[in-house]
Amino acid sequence: MTAPAPAPAPVAAPAGALADRYRAVRDQSEALCRPLLPEDTVVQPNLDVSPPKWHLAHTTWFWETMLLGPYAPGYEVFHAEFAYLFNSYYNSLGSRVNRAERGTLTRPALAEVLAYRAHVDAHLLALLANEAALPPAARELVEIGLQHEQQHQELLATDIKFILSTSPLNPAYTPGPAPADAGALAPPAAWLPVPGGVFPVGFQGEGFCFDNELPVHAALVPDFELQNRLVTNAEYLEFVEAGGYRDFRHWLGEGWDLAQAAGWQAPLYWVRSADGQWLRFTHHGLRPLELAAPVTHVSFYEADAYAQWAGARLPTEQEWEVAARRFGATPADGGTWLESPRLDPAPVPAGADPTACHQLLGECWQWTYSAYHAYPGYRRSAGPLGEYNGKFMVNQLVLRGASCATPRSHGRLSYRNFFHADKRWQFTGIRLAR
Amino acid sequence: MTAPAPAPAPVAAPAGALADRYRAVRDQSEALCRPLLPEDTVVQPNLDVSPPKWHLAHTTWFWETMLLGPYAPGYEVFHAEFAYLFNSYYNSLGSRVNRAERGTLTRPALAEVLAYRAHVDAHLLALLANEAALPPAARELVEIGLQHEQQHQELLATDIKFILSTSPLNPAYTPGPAPADAGALAPPAAWLPVPGGVFPVGFQGEGFCFDNELPVHAALVPDFELQNRLVTNAEYLEFVEAGGYRDFRHWLGEGWDLAQAAGWQAPLYWVRSADGQWLRFTHHGLRPLELAAPVTHVSFYEADAYAQWAGARLPTEQEWEVAARRFGATPADGGTWLESPRLDPAPVPAGADPTACHQLLGECWQWTYSAYHAYPGYRRSAGPLGEYNGKFMVNQLVLRGASCATPRSHGRLSYRNFFHADKRWQFTGIRLAR
Amino acid sequence: MTAPAPAPAPVAAPAGALADRYRAVRDQSEALCRPLLPEDTVVQPNLDVSPPKWHLAHTTWFWETMLLGPYAPGYEVFHAEFAYLFNSYYNSLGSRVNRAERGTLTRPALAEVLAYRAHVDAHLLALLANEAALPPAARELVEIGLQHEQQHQELLATDIKFILSTSPLNPAYTPGPAPADAGALAPPAAWLPVPGGVFPVGFQGEGFCFDNELPVHAALVPDFELQNRLVTNAEYLEFVEAGGYRDFRHWLGEGWDLAQAAGWQAPLYWVRSADGQWLRFTHHGLRPLELAAPVTHVSFYEADAYAQWAGARLPTEQEWEVAARRFGATPADGGTWLESPRLDPAPVPAGADPTACHQLLGECWQWTYSAYHAYPGYRRSAGPLGEYNGKFMVNQLVLRGASCATPRSHGRLSYRNFFHADKRWQFTGIRLAR
Amino acid sequence: MTAPAPAPAPVAAPAGALADRYRAVRDQSEALCRPLLPEDTVVQPNLDVSPPKWHLAHTTWFWETMLLGPYAPGYEVFHAEFAYLFNSYYNSLGSRVNRAERGTLTRPALAEVLAYRAHVDAHLLALLANEAALPPAARELVEIGLQHEQQHQELLATDIKFILSTSPLNPAYTPGPAPADAGALAPPAAWLPVPGGVFPVGFQGEGFCFDNELPVHAALVPDFELQNRLVTNAEYLEFVEAGGYRDFRHWLGEGWDLAQAAGWQAPLYWVRSADGQWLRFTHHGLRPLELAAPVTHVSFYEADAYAQWAGARLPTEQEWEVAARRFGATPADGGTWLESPRLDPAPVPAGADPTACHQLLGECWQWTYSAYHAYPGYRRSAGPLGEYNGKFMVNQLVLRGASCATPRSHGRLSYRNFFHADKRWQFTGIRLAR
Repeated sequence: MTAPAPAPAPVAAPAGALADRYRAVRDQSEALCRPLLPEDTVVQPNLDVSPPKWHLAHTTWFWETMLLGPYAPGYEVFHAEFAYLFNSYYNSLGSRVNRAERGTLTRPALAEVLAYRAHVDAHLLALLANEAALPPAARELVEIGLQHEQQHQELLATDIKFILSTSPLNPAYTPGPAPADAGALAPPAAWLPVPGGVFPVGFQGEGFCFDNELPVHAALVPDFELQNRLVTNAEYLEFVEAGGYRDFRHWLGEGWDLAQAAGWQAPLYWVRSADGQWLRFTHHGLRPLELAAPVTHVSFYEADAYAQWAGARLPTEQEWEVAARRFGATPADGGTWLESPRLDPAPVPAGADPTACHQLLGECWQWTYSAYHAYPGYRRSAGPLGEYNGKFMVNQLVLRGASCATPRSHGRLSYRNFFHADKRWQFTGIRLAR
Repeated sequence: MTAPAPAPAPVAAPAGALADRYRAVRDQSEALCRPLLPEDTVVQPNLDVSPPKWHLAHTTWFWETMLLGPYAPGYEVFHAEFAYLFNSYYNSLGSRVNRAERGTLTRPALAEVLAYRAHVDAHLLALLANEAALPPAARELVEIGLQHEQQHQELLATDIKFILSTSPLNPAYTPGPAPADAGALAPPAAWLPVPGGVFPVGFQGEGFCFDNELPVHAALVPDFELQNRLVTNAEYLEFVEAGGYRDFRHWLGEGWDLAQAAGWQAPLYWVRSADGQWLRFTHHGLRPLELAAPVTHVSFYEADAYAQWAGARLPTEQEWEVAARRFGATPADGGTWLESPRLDPAPVPAGADPTACHQLLGECWQWTYSAYHAYPGYRRSAGPLGEYNGKFMVNQLVLRGASCATPRSHGRLSYRNFFHADKRWQFTGIRLAR
Repeated sequence: MTAPAPAPAPVAAPAGALADRYRAVRDQSEALCRPLLPEDTVVQPNLDVSPPKWHLAHTTWFWETMLLGPYAPGYEVFHAEFAYLFNSYYNSLGSRVNRAERGTLTRPALAEVLAYRAHVDAHLLALLANEAALPPAARELVEIGLQHEQQHQELLATDIKFILSTSPLNPAYTPGPAPADAGALAPPAAWLPVPGGVFPVGFQGEGFCFDNELPVHAALVPDFELQNRLVTNAEYLEFVEAGGYRDFRHWLGEGWDLAQAAGWQAPLYWVRSADGQWLRFTHHGLRPLELAAPVTHVSFYEADAYAQWAGARLPTEQEWEVAARRFGATPADGGTWLESPRLDPAPVPAGADPTACHQLLGECWQWTYSAYHAYPGYRRSAGPLGEYNGKFMVNQLVLRGASCATPRSHGRLSYRNFFHADKRWQFTGIRLAR
Repeated sequence: MTAPAPAPAPVAAPAGALADRYRAVRDQSEALCRPLLPEDTVVQPNLDVSPPKWHLAHTTWFWETMLLGPYAPGYEVFHAEFAYLFNSYYNSLGSRVNRAERGTLTRPALAEVLAYRAHVDAHLLALLANEAALPPAARELVEIGLQHEQQHQELLATDIKFILSTSPLNPAYTPGPAPADAGALAPPAAWLPVPGGVFPVGFQGEGFCFDNELPVHAALVPDFELQNRLVTNAEYLEFVEAGGYRDFRHWLGEGWDLAQAAGWQAPLYWVRSADGQWLRFTHHGLRPLELAAPVTHVSFYEADAYAQWAGARLPTEQEWEVAARRFGATPADGGTWLESPRLDPAPVPAGADPTACHQLLGECWQWTYSAYHAYPGYRRSAGPLGEYNGKFMVNQLVLRGASCATPRSHGRLSYRNFFHADKRWQFTGIRLAR
């Protein structure tokens, strides 16, 4: 998941709202780190994961660089070295720490990072106090800063999970709600028919969107069917137990080679106990595999192999968007979302309407069989924001939906998340089409 | 470039034709290796390149395994170890030499590989002598075998070039035609408008096609313009000299990182002499950079960066196919092709019609901005041929057209070649759209 | 630096002394970590360095496993997973965390490690309360445990330095004493003649020694001369400025290749400021290069290249030991040692006796030109302690002396420290012979 | 095995002898390659192995550079690029092909390399025709050139073996003599006592030696015993079958880690057939394991582990030399040597004298427990020859004796061969001491 560029449509936020939203979003980042020990905030167990205190600092550097530098007269940077330390990947903003070395930097320590946040927050809130005086470009940058920080909240949640998972002690991040009956099954999946045609695709509402959701353009979609819920752990377990990880015929070649080399035998975080029981490491510790819940932490390769084995396929991103629009998903329709005490995708409730399409938003990002490319007519922004989305548009796959680790106000139908096909540490899941 | 699966439509070849075509195609592979010394046929200077004698043997193993095994009663394999040595990537056909170790195997030596070819040829020609008696499935396999061998002829041409290029002696593969005036310029490029609409895409003719060209399906294409010729060395040189390799803003992120790490400063095979002159290593030795000829041996990353810099973009594969169909390209329309004495893309001739679309086939494969994915409705074949194309359908880009190293009878409008974005050793070039 | 095995001679410690020494040594480990933040105790910026909290836990595991397991009836391990987490390299004691992953384990956090220490300490002190009742083998193990913990104290000091050095903020571990006049020079070095002969080599005193210092055996040493002090920063700087890092003729081949590949241009921690001044990162922050102090943090390759350049050579370990014995070095003779507020090698004081041999113990480990091999007649112990020293006896070089990071009670003349030729993160220095 | 520097003593060769010796040595190199196909002469299956045609060219470049350049007035180099292509590791002689890329260079092909040899030979023989007129320095260089070429003959023999071994076809280099009775056992080993004392060590004869054999110096050697023959395949097989490769207690730590990572279960070239029979790949194809023959192709780690397991140890190089001198080994005493039709170490003949010391020279290089360091008083030569031996004097072990692949006139008692502890592709064996 990467990041946002100015929506071309005017941003019509209520007066005074920016400062409030700023405070709320910033608080949320710190709240996410509150259950951690300082030790947990430093490490980088693999290249995809960043240390939590790096996230806290990087988002702050983003505000400082994008807003305070240009718009707060006389502002002096908190520390001259922080631009080097906390730039993520902006070539236009100078040299930076090698990504692989983020996890060796113990200083600035967490407390100093929090001081940095407080310093920048004070200046930002002063700037936002007179929101009306801000030029439109600055207001757009505030919006982007908020979206950017929310993206890092999702990364914080998943990076924290990965970090804690490396310890054989299986520490819980938070206690979480009491476990459900792990053995209960979800209602059977149903296929929902979607008539084809030419549809507008891309962001069509009001408010913010990233530049990669634009321009709206026509897409030709065939008649197809979509499953009314995500693939469950029970269903995926069948694939595992049928030898799905040992039969190359289901797999894309690069996926098969990787699965063999890495010794994959199940999704990330699945563990088989000595007595043969399947468990999962979660934000709430090691728990029995909840059969009704959506399978998650699968790579695109696994999602595709499962679909092949099941005689189905993954939807394209256009199909997904057309269906989601048809079935009326909005963040308000449900979903677990980051703000919930449960940081894990939830099952479809018993008795749910089988003709509705469930779990579109707020449980798992859903791998599509669409490469992450520019929409026709897309143009990269000039300046640093041109590096936000555009430079990643090759070799990755689009994921649609939003996960239980996405802030609810961050999810939307036209959102294009993107990862390489081998990534498993996000809350990624599977929705079948045919 | 990988490989074919049975076309669903019946193959209607003239009686007796198969044996003749077989002999011609097989001869061509050996003819390609005739200018080589035995030493040249052994090595593998990088993972993409295979030793020429491996190509000669692998194609033979393909015939032996696919045709003689099932259809020649009583046939005994030439050597029990050859299946292990010369299987390329078919999991369904057993274990095999690690790809990285192809270049250390000096035995069987070239002479024994040629004996293997003669042995298999004799049996195949005996089988084809009574073509009419062959079951349709066998006839289809013969067709695939021919296409497969032609694909390896193109690889032979490009692998040989790479192998010879590693020597500081700059050996010529063949003398080639006398060099043209290197300083002459091509006629200026013109933009050809193509009206959008919904078009059928995929193989629509008679005869053979690969399974990845099917099924024919409707594609929505916007109004766009395509350049009437490939980008030339002169044009690309402007990009090089304007600092194109030193400005990240033109590049996709992964491309930029790779170009920096690998020290790219120009296309593969470009050399700057001590006195500042640009030269190119070719099949015909080191030659001055021919300004009018199409730039070639560029990665997708370079093609995309060039297009960005030039204020244009690469076409999608659908756009390319629609335009090519509209402008009427067929292999007979020209092109240099493998059979020519010149193994290098040729300029548009002086005085060429500026309203025509040139160099669609037979000079350079043209990078498109389309991921190599399955067409809607595509189904992998069962059995080994299911590993021919389908398992590669992720993380690669489609190239359209055909190059000067493609056998003329192998090129067609709907052909989908595919490579990873970093590959440069094929005859790859750039056609701009906007 | 690795570890000890039972001295064959009986250990004659004063009554009650063991508990006191135990407490003192254990306290010292924790005192070393007190200036750190929890964040500093987690990371592993390279494979040689271990996280400080790992050192604190590993030494505790050693006591628990070697003493409490066998000798404290009814003792139950503090945590069943800790043997897996904190075993360093003992194959005989079961599987363990991959060394490369020590720096990703945030849990157990520092506080829990300190609780682990307190738990084990209580049990150990209970066991030692009745020291007289302990069987001799247990008393020997206590001695080894103390020595082992002291070895880790030296590693703690040098690992902490490396960890802090990775931050561009250059944090100081402790303030340290006020800097001396950095530009002052040491007294000129003098050559001390040492007559050759056959000498006993190895540990010949009372008390503890490691098994690798035994057996005492005769060694033939030629007439030679040894410098009366360590090579200084001023002298080494001459080598640097004379182009020593750019002339292969001074270097061993593997050293040259490494220095080129790694871009070495000076010892570890030397930094050239923008205005051309030489600085050094120390435990007390970034300080001007103290010209009179011994050069330190050099690899064997650099030590050897310097000696070649200076027209001298490194001593063998036998020469070093014979000379040290002749010149009467004991830990009481001076030296900076770990217990000092200055964690950095100190210059020879002005007015020092030029006929004495200075800095033998307590400033820098001194690279010798002796491979770390077994002494004639050496036998590895059975059991886990057989893995302490013996299994490392190839591919490393012996260092003699002791450094400013060595606990004073740990240093002695016959001590054989050993590292690979490329290591630089210890306080290693150069003494010349000829 | 690396190389020679001028012996300080005057070389007293018979008149006219140099040209004859030159011709004989040069012929021998080509004779060694005659059984090869051109394909075999190109590849480099691992970094230790060089392509045979590289050896043929490199030795020629050595003559051209060292002799013809300085001493043949008006000589012009055969090809300007060859210095770049065929310099091995002489920094003083300019830049060169990366070692890892020797095996991708197909040109110059074998025929051109042979032409290069003929060209240089003609000039050299012209120079040597008037041997008496040569300055002494030139005569010394001729001697070194001969020794150097002989060293490459041994490498040719072992590199060829490795190259052929990579093919599953198990091609024989030459037929070799008929296999002996593989099941016969060698006479039991006997321990020969050697009284200790102070002995001169180093080259003490007339004629040529390498600089690393000098200066002669006194060494103190304890009383010890040496086995009267090399360890046999039968004895080593016992170690294998007793689980020697699965018990870390016998191994040095780095050896154990490597053996696990590389999956070693027996010496290089040992193969277990489907029916459980032990075979060995030899220059004469795959043959049953000859139980009476010396075990060979073992690393130092394996030699040391075997010795540990057998309750013995490896000798030091001083012990080896003192014993060999005592027991009177000379090349004339027997041995298989390179000139023999059998390129494999031979058993002690039945009925051999049990009080004699067998197989000192001409069967296997014998790992010693001595690091390859300079002798006391050693000085590197100035100029390129200073890179011949001196720069390798760290991180390697000395091997003594000479193998069945050493030219007989190249072997001698004081010869110091050296390899890293992990190397197995030379004819290395084990002689026990205690």
